[in-house]
Amino acid sequence: MDTFSRFPIPRLDALPDDIRARIVAVHEKAGFIPNVFLAWAHRPEEFRAFFAYHDALLEKAGGLTKAEREMIVVATSAVNHCHYCVIAHGAILRIYAKNPQMADQVAIDHRKADISDRQKTMLDFAVKLARTPEEITDADRQMLKQHGFSEEDIWDIGGITALFALSNRMAHLIEMRANDEFYLLGRTPPAAKEHKS
Amino acid sequence: MDTFSRFPIPRLDALPDDIRARIVAVHEKAGFIPNVFLAWAHRPEEFRAFFAYHDALLEKAGGLTKAEREMIVVATSAVNHCHYCVIAHGAILRIYAKNPQMADQVAIDHRKADISDRQKTMLDFAVKLARTPEEITDADRQMLKQHGFSEEDIWDIGGITALFALSNRMAHLIEMRANDEFYLLGRTPPAAKEHKS
Amino acid sequence: MDTFSRFPIPRLDALPDDIRARIVAVHEKAGFIPNVFLAWAHRPEEFRAFFAYHDALLEKAGGLTKAEREMIVVATSAVNHCHYCVIAHGAILRIYAKNPQMADQVAIDHRKADISDRQKTMLDFAVKLARTPEEITDADRQMLKQHGFSEEDIWDIGGITALFALSNRMAHLIEMRANDEFYLLGRTPPAAKEHKS
Amino acid sequence: MDTFSRFPIPRLDALPDDIRARIVAVHEKAGFIPNVFLAWAHRPEEFRAFFAYHDALLEKAGGLTKAEREMIVVATSAVNHCHYCVIAHGAILRIYAKNPQMADQVAIDHRKADISDRQKTMLDFAVKLARTPEEITDADRQMLKQHGFSEEDIWDIGGITALFALSNRMAHLIEMRANDEFYLLGRTPPAAKEHKS
Amino acid sequence: MDTFSRFPIPRLDALPDDIRARIVAVHEKAGFIPNVFLAWAHRPEEFRAFFAYHDALLEKAGGLTKAEREMIVVATSAVNHCHYCVIAHGAILRIYAKNPQMADQVAIDHRKADISDRQKTMLDFAVKLARTPEEITDADRQMLKQHGFSEEDIWDIGGITALFALSNRMAHLIEMRANDEFYLLGRTPPAAKEHKS
Amino acid sequence: MDTFSRFPIPRLDALPDDIRARIVAVHEKAGFIPNVFLAWAHRPEEFRAFFAYHDALLEKAGGLTKAEREMIVVATSAVNHCHYCVIAHGAILRIYAKNPQMADQVAIDHRKADISDRQKTMLDFAVKLARTPEEITDADRQMLKQHGFSEEDIWDIGGITALFALSNRMAHLIEMRANDEFYLLGRTPPAAKEHKS
Repeated sequence: MDTFSRFPIPRLDALPDDIRARIVAVHEKAGFIPNVFLAWAHRPEEFRAFFAYHDALLEKAGGLTKAEREMIVVATSAVNHCHYCVIAHGAILRIYAKNPQMADQVAIDHRKADISDRQKTMLDFAVKLARTPEEITDADRQMLKQHGFSEEDIWDIGGITALFALSNRMAHLIEMRANDEFYLLGRTPPAAKEHKS
Repeated sequence: MDTFSRFPIPRLDALPDDIRARIVAVHEKAGFIPNVFLAWAHRPEEFRAFFAYHDALLEKAGGLTKAEREMIVVATSAVNHCHYCVIAHGAILRIYAKNPQMADQVAIDHRKADISDRQKTMLDFAVKLARTPEEITDADRQMLKQHGFSEEDIWDIGGITALFALSNRMAHLIEMRANDEFYLLGRTPPAAKEHKS
Repeated sequence: MDTFSRFPIPRLDALPDDIRARIVAVHEKAGFIPNVFLAWAHRPEEFRAFFAYHDALLEKAGGLTKAEREMIVVATSAVNHCHYCVIAHGAILRIYAKNPQMADQVAIDHRKADISDRQKTMLDFAVKLARTPEEITDADRQMLKQHGFSEEDIWDIGGITALFALSNRMAHLIEMRANDEFYLLGRTPPAAKEHKS
Repeated sequence: MDTFSRFPIPRLDALPDDIRARIVAVHEKAGFIPNVFLAWAHRPEEFRAFFAYHDALLEKAGGLTKAEREMIVVATSAVNHCHYCVIAHGAILRIYAKNPQMADQVAIDHRKADISDRQKTMLDFAVKLARTPEEITDADRQMLKQHGFSEEDIWDIGGITALFALSNRMAHLIEMRANDEFYLLGRTPPAAKEHKS
Repeated sequence: MDTFSRFPIPRLDALPDDIRARIVAVHEKAGFIPNVFLAWAHRPEEFRAFFAYHDALLEKAGGLTKAEREMIVVATSAVNHCHYCVIAHGAILRIYAKNPQMADQVAIDHRKADISDRQKTMLDFAVKLARTPEEITDADRQMLKQHGFSEEDIWDIGGITALFALSNRMAHLIEMRANDEFYLLGRTPPAAKEHKS
Repeated sequence: MDTFSRFPIPRLDALPDDIRARIVAVHEKAGFIPNVFLAWAHRPEEFRAFFAYHDALLEKAGGLTKAEREMIVVATSAVNHCHYCVIAHGAILRIYAKNPQMADQVAIDHRKADISDRQKTMLDFAVKLARTPEEITDADRQMLKQHGFSEEDIWDIGGITALFALSNRMAHLIEMRANDEFYLLGRTPPAAKEHKS
């Protein structure tokens, strides 16, 4: 059970109630416990802060679709070479986008992925902020506005990028590994699924 | 009042009670409101998560001194060219270390600062994790252990680096500027201060 | 039919006999025609030279397993952000290694993949040669020898890296895209497959 | 005889007939055997594929002059710090361009060489493809078209760059050294030569 | 006395008369001897050449203000991580600009400092010349001209950058440290000073 | 006459006597006026300081041979892509080393040039100081000492590197071009010359 982190993995029954409750809920919904929950539970206060930040940006209303938010996670985690985030959020992107190919394409090179020009501009911004934040200037924000992003959208794009800058570094620090389940999630196109049923 | 961020700055009386209370408390303690509090208050949920994460890492007990934690902030924020974090946390480092020179030295080049070899090794690790997280391997963690850092210290070093990877990117995103007060804080050596009083 | 390259795709019946024969053969074996064959057929002489080079390195006997050769392709194509090569050769690696996870792991960060230390050293060498060939010195070759690679193995590692340095650049030049079929190939673990049958 | 490669150099009489014939022919034409032929002959199949690829791109008809093709080789091999290719193809460029200075200029900094703006644009493209192929986008191809390059010219520019990406890596791998003869070839301007004869 | 350089520091009375005279003069003017004078005096001929070059560029008449020249020194020395030059010339910039904040801002990220667009363009040029001189082309000079810089101003900008490229490297070579006095110089705003007196 | 600089070239008879005298002397010795003299004469004070610095480092006694000093110039100017310095000092290196090949080898990749391990270590140090001076630490100086370099030799290596950091930037700034004469100087090996005479 402790093979997916270089740090100790707490037992579920030893965790504070709120944290155990969140983990039980995600287990019921997903069918498995994504390793990030157990790895981060080693530090309960950081666990609470991280998932509060995550929910604030990934589950809020706003101009970005859920798939677009996951594209940002995948593209920036890929340039940071983050094993856990690319594999886990790649799966989530496949599901939200109902597209079994987009996550791999975005992870390898968002510039040549099957996404809109608007989305490529969004990811250009996110990747630049992820790797060389000092190079972001007002011209970059203006470019986003020309593609129809609002001020609040820009905060969201930057905020998601910033949160996964944190997450990617923690994942490298503890060598967090992805659950086996993520590799296959969302790889069968929705149409094919319907055929099966 | 909105000159220190590219995004709207909320009025204090329009903020949720808990956020206003925290800001009032810091104002009373510091004598001014550090801009990060008002800039982040534009997004109350992100405000709460950010400062919860901050307190969990910067105010916990552990093997690192308070000055060492601020060294990590200053060194990694400097390689990320973060105006707010270098100036504000430079001031905090001067105060905690009771040393008016260390912050500038660490910001310019930690390798040639007046700090111990152990601290240089800590900052080598932090700066590498900050800029090229993918290059962190077990050999880097072993190097920290050889200098006496515990497993939990390593998490702290990485966690602080990761949190300010987030913070630096938000600061570049919103072009957050530092308060005037920070520039001078802690620049007079403690001994000199005592002479004055 | 011409959507997977920025350059014209020749009709099969307009191709020289030897090239058409090779394409027909691969079609029969794989069940589809990998796009690289049709894209490269725009230039018959380059087609012949490329696949001759490919076969000389990928299908020869030698100290490297077939999976190890594909690991080199995937790791070096990933640092070159090559859409076609990562997706297509990722599939081939999954099949040769009988491992549905290794290709994604190697593409994201070979340093943290589930492979042996010997294989990590092999990929360190390949990735360095791929991105900064001038930095390869005798010390790098000695490191390979310490892990048991022979002189001829070293040529093979370097040769495969060099061939895909060519291939990755052609793929970026023509914006070659991978066939849909590659995304799913080899993703079900062999054991699971047997259960099905 | 084996000082120009870290790998064994085959004896001419031990080589397959077709390879020996090619080497004899180049010896007769050039007056010496360029080391690349003997170094690559260690692997006859790779020898055949490499020179077939080379001839397909360097000796075909097309919109690029022979000197322009060699400019591409010299500029991209120089940014890859390739001893053999810069020295040997520098000589060939001097001869084709009938210009004793151009090769050194292009190798040091093509942006400040005595070549046309069109040629500088061609080399900007080639050098970008050589070092950061992922950054090539449609805008780069459009820039070439604005300078009058056809689609097939673009393939040629990219193809030559890609082939020498392979060649430069093999040269670093085996530490291939240039023949003494190349250093002086083409250094006397054509006019001066005529005076001599 | 020898703690601010890895190389021997000469005794004042052992120095040639002209060098001692210069040092005595600067001591009288500044109230202390900046370490650069004593460190460089280890090599009298290099001392004379360095300060002659310095005076020729920093004390000449011309289109750049004294503060702008120091901005160039601070910005380029900061990207070179030069302890001595950032601290010492940061102090001089504060004094010339009568601005206690500008030096820290320029050192951390000139793009986000409180300076004019014209000055940001000047520093963009200087920083590019400092770190990747090969990328300077005529387009960069034209950009300076569009912001009103004359040909001679451009030489001055480049010359100061070039001189501190030398100086920064010498400072790293000998690990030259800044005098304590520089840290506080110019940090109190002129208005505040007047209030005090 | 003004084609080798973007800035005005002064007429010889308009120059101060000391500068004209130096130029006349070098003309008599070399048979032509190297462009650096006329280009720099646009600024007489900088001319005097530059050549004083040059003579102090290149013509002093010390542990480095004249050829080794020129190797440093060529290797560091090559990584800075400096047209004038690589071509002009390449010629001087050929002459001092009595070796027609060394300059091209060092310019392309000093790691694979025909020089001693001691000289490669010297150039590793110089190139690192030239491009990333902040990475020079005491370990680098110790490496030089292990290869027998004295403290004063280390200053010389660093000083020459620093001076040409200045020179390379000025050459890029003014787009200084090399005289035609340099291309051929020293290319015929001394032995061959004697045979001719």
